[in-house]
Amino acid sequence: MRDAATPPAPTHLDPAELRTLDAHWRAANYLAVGQIYLMANPLLTEPLRPEHIKPRLLGHWGTSPGLNLVHTHLNRVIKARDLEALCVWGPGHGGPAVLANSWLDGTYGETYPDVGRDRSGMERLFRQFSFPGGVPSHVAPETPGSIHEGGELGYSLTHAYGAAFDNPRLLVACVIGDGEAETGPLAASWHATKFLDPVHDGAVLPILHLNGYKIANPAVLARIPHDELDALLRGYGHDPLYVVGNDPATVHDALAAAMDRALDRIGDIQRRARSGGETERPHWPAIVLRTPKGWTGPREVDGLPVEGTWRAHQVPLAGVRDHVDHRHQLEAWLRSYRPEELFDASGAPRPDVLACVPEGSRRLGASPHANGGLLLRELPLPPLERHAVEVDKPGTVLHEPTRVLGGMLRAVMAATARRRDFRVVGPDETASNRLEALYEATGKAWQAETVGTDEHLSHDGRVMEVLSEHLCQGWLEGYLLTGRHGLFSSYEAFAHIVDSMVNQHIKWLRTARRLPWRRPIASLNYLLTSHVWRQDHNGFSHQDPGFVDHVLNKSPEVVRVYLPPDANTLLCVAEHALRSRDYVNVIVAGKQPCFDWLTLEEARAHCARGAGAWTWAGTEDDGEPDAVLACAGDVPTQETLAAASLLRRHLPELAVRVVNVVDMARLLPPGEHPHGMPDFEYDALFTPDKPVIFAYHGYPWLIHRLCYRRTGHPHLHVRGYRERGTTTTPFDMVVRNDLDRYRLVMDVVDRVPGLGVRAVALRQAMADARTRHHAWIREHGTDLPEVADWTWTG
Amino acid sequence: MRDAATPPAPTHLDPAELRTLDAHWRAANYLAVGQIYLMANPLLTEPLRPEHIKPRLLGHWGTSPGLNLVHTHLNRVIKARDLEALCVWGPGHGGPAVLANSWLDGTYGETYPDVGRDRSGMERLFRQFSFPGGVPSHVAPETPGSIHEGGELGYSLTHAYGAAFDNPRLLVACVIGDGEAETGPLAASWHATKFLDPVHDGAVLPILHLNGYKIANPAVLARIPHDELDALLRGYGHDPLYVVGNDPATVHDALAAAMDRALDRIGDIQRRARSGGETERPHWPAIVLRTPKGWTGPREVDGLPVEGTWRAHQVPLAGVRDHVDHRHQLEAWLRSYRPEELFDASGAPRPDVLACVPEGSRRLGASPHANGGLLLRELPLPPLERHAVEVDKPGTVLHEPTRVLGGMLRAVMAATARRRDFRVVGPDETASNRLEALYEATGKAWQAETVGTDEHLSHDGRVMEVLSEHLCQGWLEGYLLTGRHGLFSSYEAFAHIVDSMVNQHIKWLRTARRLPWRRPIASLNYLLTSHVWRQDHNGFSHQDPGFVDHVLNKSPEVVRVYLPPDANTLLCVAEHALRSRDYVNVIVAGKQPCFDWLTLEEARAHCARGAGAWTWAGTEDDGEPDAVLACAGDVPTQETLAAASLLRRHLPELAVRVVNVVDMARLLPPGEHPHGMPDFEYDALFTPDKPVIFAYHGYPWLIHRLCYRRTGHPHLHVRGYRERGTTTTPFDMVVRNDLDRYRLVMDVVDRVPGLGVRAVALRQAMADARTRHHAWIREHGTDLPEVADWTWTG
Repeated sequence: MRDAATPPAPTHLDPAELRTLDAHWRAANYLAVGQIYLMANPLLTEPLRPEHIKPRLLGHWGTSPGLNLVHTHLNRVIKARDLEALCVWGPGHGGPAVLANSWLDGTYGETYPDVGRDRSGMERLFRQFSFPGGVPSHVAPETPGSIHEGGELGYSLTHAYGAAFDNPRLLVACVIGDGEAETGPLAASWHATKFLDPVHDGAVLPILHLNGYKIANPAVLARIPHDELDALLRGYGHDPLYVVGNDPATVHDALAAAMDRALDRIGDIQRRARSGGETERPHWPAIVLRTPKGWTGPREVDGLPVEGTWRAHQVPLAGVRDHVDHRHQLEAWLRSYRPEELFDASGAPRPDVLACVPEGSRRLGASPHANGGLLLRELPLPPLERHAVEVDKPGTVLHEPTRVLGGMLRAVMAATARRRDFRVVGPDETASNRLEALYEATGKAWQAETVGTDEHLSHDGRVMEVLSEHLCQGWLEGYLLTGRHGLFSSYEAFAHIVDSMVNQHIKWLRTARRLPWRRPIASLNYLLTSHVWRQDHNGFSHQDPGFVDHVLNKSPEVVRVYLPPDANTLLCVAEHALRSRDYVNVIVAGKQPCFDWLTLEEARAHCARGAGAWTWAGTEDDGEPDAVLACAGDVPTQETLAAASLLRRHLPELAVRVVNVVDMARLLPPGEHPHGMPDFEYDALFTPDKPVIFAYHGYPWLIHRLCYRRTGHPHLHVRGYRERGTTTTPFDMVVRNDLDRYRLVMDVVDRVPGLGVRAVALRQAMADARTRHHAWIREHGTDLPEVADWTWTG
Repeated sequence: MRDAATPPAPTHLDPAELRTLDAHWRAANYLAVGQIYLMANPLLTEPLRPEHIKPRLLGHWGTSPGLNLVHTHLNRVIKARDLEALCVWGPGHGGPAVLANSWLDGTYGETYPDVGRDRSGMERLFRQFSFPGGVPSHVAPETPGSIHEGGELGYSLTHAYGAAFDNPRLLVACVIGDGEAETGPLAASWHATKFLDPVHDGAVLPILHLNGYKIANPAVLARIPHDELDALLRGYGHDPLYVVGNDPATVHDALAAAMDRALDRIGDIQRRARSGGETERPHWPAIVLRTPKGWTGPREVDGLPVEGTWRAHQVPLAGVRDHVDHRHQLEAWLRSYRPEELFDASGAPRPDVLACVPEGSRRLGASPHANGGLLLRELPLPPLERHAVEVDKPGTVLHEPTRVLGGMLRAVMAATARRRDFRVVGPDETASNRLEALYEATGKAWQAETVGTDEHLSHDGRVMEVLSEHLCQGWLEGYLLTGRHGLFSSYEAFAHIVDSMVNQHIKWLRTARRLPWRRPIASLNYLLTSHVWRQDHNGFSHQDPGFVDHVLNKSPEVVRVYLPPDANTLLCVAEHALRSRDYVNVIVAGKQPCFDWLTLEEARAHCARGAGAWTWAGTEDDGEPDAVLACAGDVPTQETLAAASLLRRHLPELAVRVVNVVDMARLLPPGEHPHGMPDFEYDALFTPDKPVIFAYHGYPWLIHRLCYRRTGHPHLHVRGYRERGTTTTPFDMVVRNDLDRYRLVMDVVDRVPGLGVRAVALRQAMADARTRHHAWIREHGTDLPEVADWTWTG
């Protein structure tokens, strides 16, 4: 080990405490190794035989001793200071460590009674780990005390901050692996120091664990000079403390001292801020822990160094079942922890081992914050009547839907002013997305410097703006997982930045829903706006409606997608989303002026059905229509209603039904999604055999993917975005992608048989209008007056 | 402005140089404002009238004066030092600035002859900007000298490094906005200092532009104390230089001095390293430029401050066409640059303006590195015969396909040892993904500290490993866009981390392909391995096959997706991908032992067709089969062939065709993708009316989305991954997702009419085998011996 700083002499801990801490650490290490290797003989009451060893050795040893060390020392300070604490384990692929600690503190056995603190429980703990039908090798929803999946790396610190916001009594420790520290999201997360309010938020204690190696490579932060690392952490706004070594007693002492110093400083910071005296942004402590990878494991295997190297990353000794030398080495490794001192004959941990463990809900495995549903309160939502817009006649009045929503969100923000359990996050776009009414009820969280031209910044604001979708997503996830509510408003195209994060959150929810002890949490709600059809300022680079496709690939019990066509339907959808639990709700809605089609009452009824015919817009009688004009999304709805108007005027004998879809999952069969529409209902709405021209907001094939099993699918013709994007006017965008009113009319005429000469003339007129559009826009740079001035006339 | 450091007295530049630099800057500013506002009267030869103003005012002024300043000063040092330079413009939404400079240096008019350096060219430059049918408001492929779309933020610095690798004579300047600096990818990019080799790579000069505000909020790095910012940059490994101010003459002088100091240092660093003396990682210079947002624009508009605030972000003066006061203010603003001193009566820039502009390919707009196809050389690929595996009989020998590919990549790496135009990037997984043969030809790039247990690290390595998919992607994009070749190997699930980055790259390629002056570049090649079916160590969190779905939503002229079923097909596909141009090729292939099905010759023929019947595997005669077993992907292919074997043995009278699909786009109709298969061919291969049981690697509905227009689509039944993931054995994974051999046999039996009693018995036997599997795995944690020991017997 390269000692960047000399650790203090072992003087912080008294010998008895050092002994009990070390006993706890050894016990956790023993249990971690046991999980990776053993399926029987957990207490080593007999020599290891092949049949004690699992046939498939899977898991990550390398990070486990470090996690065990941190957990042991968190136990100590939690108990000594009666702390309310949570820990986010960034290197959560070291699942054996966190499971070992949860088993030791008793929470595992309380959660899963057949895995209690006795011999048979220990055997089950070992066997189930990474075993088919057992538990994942990572920290996961199944792990008591966890809010952070140890899968994809990069999100520990942003989750930790999310958990700390509006939890003023909470300490959130966060172990960051030196591998994870190389990721973008983690690198950006450090700057959350500028967003954490020492008065209303809890504290985050980052513990950067430098064990030097990833799977196969050194880690960057472990291989820069001490001065550079120190500068980096100070640059992030931290006051770092260093713990370095490979001698257990020395490291125990240094880590205990560092934790005490860190917690003393956190206490000082909070006291000063909360007494009202201090308004300067504090320099929060952070701990750098530099210990060997796979510490206490095999030093060498087959002549190659393992401890302290990348070879310790997963399973240091392979072929243990068949290879007697390796089996002996494993046994010696296990016995090096002196299990007989740690567990009694029944398999229970001895009192020394448990001396540092806190009690009840103070245990990290039992924190109610890690099972947020326990703490969740119903969100106080205002009556929508207060925020709905008046609609006397459809398609004549314009509102910016997200601005209308902003009024409702302002009311929610105001109603939670004391409770502080609602936040809105977004990458610098809350006002751009027309939600600025929020600022009448709260500010934007900001602890950095301010100048006179700033607006709406405040230490205690509950709107969070940072130009990082990763941070927005991670903060909100951490906030929701600890039992609060929120909304993420984003440009539609850039939601893809968090594709992989939402994957992981959906996986978390899908698994958590199946665990009876995990209580439902508030849904993760996206408002995707500044959408593909209205990128007037930005063009092609900002045009991508595919987040919906991405989300609809995932577990149907979790995902919901809504495309409200106007302001009142947006209100209804948002109310539903904010009330819901354990979902990921994706709402796509425009921020530009958009016609209002439905009164609040009509919007409620429409949203309750999720999809329905707008009989006032069509021309059908009681019988079956000749064609269906279906639509989903605000711009396609406008074009569809304009097409319906044209058909009404020019081909009144044609019976056209207009169908609007708000809830995309309604299109799926019931077996594929809980919201799926039965076939008889689908057939009644869309007909089994008439042409359906579906104007859809996004990639057209999504509609085919949802509807391919329906009887009427061969008659379904979808228009949508086909990557024909550029910098142009809104109407030119729909023309380029063949989603415009003229094209939709042509599509109907092309598909309904037996139309006469008037239809031929209409088709030609529509084609001419498109030609006229192209000429006009080249000349004027604006839309045809007949389009720009259009209102719905029925 | 808050002065964090006192700028030096204006002593660096002589007065004449200062005057010409300022003239260039004023000219660029004038042209930027003109682009945002004007469609006529470009030289202000008459007072501004409404019809001179564009009807829609779109664009970003705020960052433009800063970009113009940097461009002006880059011109100066390029000319003075005869530098080969490229600039990546992070705040590329300031398109008007980069376009203005390209017009000034003459490259714009050379690229687009009707937009030359005269009055009519200037008028076209103004009018086309953000105008329908014109050019995007951002830096984009259309912009000469650019390799970086100014759309989604975060990737400038990683692109800059990608451009610098293996370009030892190149200086890559990179302007980083303080907004962009908040993103995760940018935050991580700073650490590329540990990967840049001063001997074989060029230099990157980051210029962090702190103008203080984003769209609506202050920027974090602009609002931390100077000491903290300085520590941060030193922590990243830089030696920062500061330029601060709002007085043009002072800032010109300070920036010129800083650029000279930075370039002197870069020269020193490179000389010392290249002379062989210095092996310590250098501290590269970086410039921090702190100037007002919207500098030189309106100070106030309607009584509210604009210059130096977020209000300057886009269009500071709105309604200029209708609002006479605003129009007068715009005119005064434009005249403040004294256009009559800058342009002659013909509209050409005066000599003073152009005094700092370099010539020929030294101009930033004309750098051949920014049109990488100009520099691209054919990659020397080895004969595949040297790397192919022997296949005497299908399905009896196992190879790890990616390991076989590793041999081929080693040969490419060796053949490019002197040329240095091929790199392999990956997040710490090159060895895990079995490509370690590469290390026989090169090392892993690493400039940070090393210790004795490290392996394969070298200063000049051309394998790039960092635990950040964002950096891998950005480095490779920058490398390819500047005319080199490469491969990105990633865990399949975590490719989603770069979903939004690949979107932008696909958009870039799609646009660049339509510009005749942009020469084709090497394709961006993904090898997705450690795929969904083989996550034995990791389970659900690592299981996601959706990257293919994501990519297939994008421009079909750019995207290609290949699922080679074995080692030899992987070689053929990789050869094709590495030879191709202007594509994004996604190759999904396993790293675990996999049966070899095809000889090299057969693999070549199969890949050339992209999809074909494996007659040796089926039981069909000359006529139409009774059923088709189709497959795509290595694991589904294995299960399909196992199912075919079972059917051959137990229902030999059934005519089964086995079809394997390598090139997914073949399934699309020809109108939807250049590789699309004509209907007659599809019908001949899959039959128009027989049941097709399609075992697919990923989400099953993708196959429906590709095939829904085919005649036989109602008979298509797809099995694939349905989010039923967990930590378990490979075979249990396919059983859980109903993709196993037994289920496939049942699917056939269920769908072929008129099968007799033997089929009923077979179906029952298959169901029993699945039950037996469930019991066995619970007990043993392994797969049924009949599955584990299976080989293909025909």
